[in-house]
Amino acid sequence: MSAPAQTDLLALDRAAQDLLFRAARTANTFTDEPVTDAQVTAIHDLIRYGPTAFNGQPLRVLLLRSAAARARLLPYLSSGNRAKTATAPLVAVLAADVDFHDRLPELFPHRPQARDWLTDRAARAEQARLNATLQIGYLLVGVRAAGLAAGPMAGFDAAGVTREFFPDGRHETLLLMNVGRPGPDAWHDRLPRLDATEVISIR
Amino acid sequence: MSAPAQTDLLALDRAAQDLLFRAARTANTFTDEPVTDAQVTAIHDLIRYGPTAFNGQPLRVLLLRSAAARARLLPYLSSGNRAKTATAPLVAVLAADVDFHDRLPELFPHRPQARDWLTDRAARAEQARLNATLQIGYLLVGVRAAGLAAGPMAGFDAAGVTREFFPDGRHETLLLMNVGRPGPDAWHDRLPRLDATEVISIR
Repeated sequence: MSAPAQTDLLALDRAAQDLLFRAARTANTFTDEPVTDAQVTAIHDLIRYGPTAFNGQPLRVLLLRSAAARARLLPYLSSGNRAKTATAPLVAVLAADVDFHDRLPELFPHRPQARDWLTDRAARAEQARLNATLQIGYLLVGVRAAGLAAGPMAGFDAAGVTREFFPDGRHETLLLMNVGRPGPDAWHDRLPRLDATEVISIR
Repeated sequence: MSAPAQTDLLALDRAAQDLLFRAARTANTFTDEPVTDAQVTAIHDLIRYGPTAFNGQPLRVLLLRSAAARARLLPYLSSGNRAKTATAPLVAVLAADVDFHDRLPELFPHRPQARDWLTDRAARAEQARLNATLQIGYLLVGVRAAGLAAGPMAGFDAAGVTREFFPDGRHETLLLMNVGRPGPDAWHDRLPRLDATEVISIR
């Protein structure tokens, strides 16, 4: 008798494994089919249940759909990211709200003093970045759960994007993500992944 | 005719939505059922396909299973995290490999010069933290995909854990995560989540 396949050791069915990870790819081209507000809300309604420290939920999402808003973003992108970002139906600017602690009395009501543990801005910004980035991981899975492709991008001037779109001084931009249906020739062959033995050790 | 439910706007089926997000919870107690090496490998085999910048895959996972390894971790935890961590079948120490760029010629073979764009250690450490944290988001989803509960924890002395378990100076510990089957009274009521209108804006 052969060993069970990796896919059979999971509770998640094979179609969902494919949709979220195995067959999902980072798209570099998109069709012009719009991503609707209803789809955006449905994705948020799924992934908002993902856990964060103190239930702080620091991720803030600015979605650029109009040509005018898009045009303000493009100058901050590395040249290799501009063409695909100009044609994606939706571009998400993903930022951490460094003042997320102001909501803790409401979001973590059994310990309202948690807000006062986070009065140091630098330490709070680190927590905001860590937890908002975890939430970006959930968001990427959520975009795929909606049958859409997500194209995360790190190649951009983050400080410039923050000045342009979040002039209030309480946000830090972490990542951009193109969202839409994959277009023609949307990706190359999949790149190699590390084996479990290179990533995981057990004691 | 009423509007379609949020759950129906997603390609992911309702059972998978519940398994990964809607019904999944951060467990505070665990049964003594072990998490097997085969389960760990199956989770990795699923989530290793999640995207990272330059395909760099900086997340490294140290799994503590033995009582001796666990005993070395406990002193670094906040008092509120000790009891559950002592009884979880598996505790994952999740770290970023700051020298992940050494693997880029193999992982990003079409642009082998990418390694040399990352010679500045501080900039590279920031990329390592961001991408490893994204991967922790994928990992949390993967643990749930295996039918297990994940308990991420930020309340610990990260520098101390790094010194204790990664003395090589090339890793930064980001988060801990208890993994196992939920035990009795594993959680309280779910805490409130922000609405889409509080998190998302569209331009």
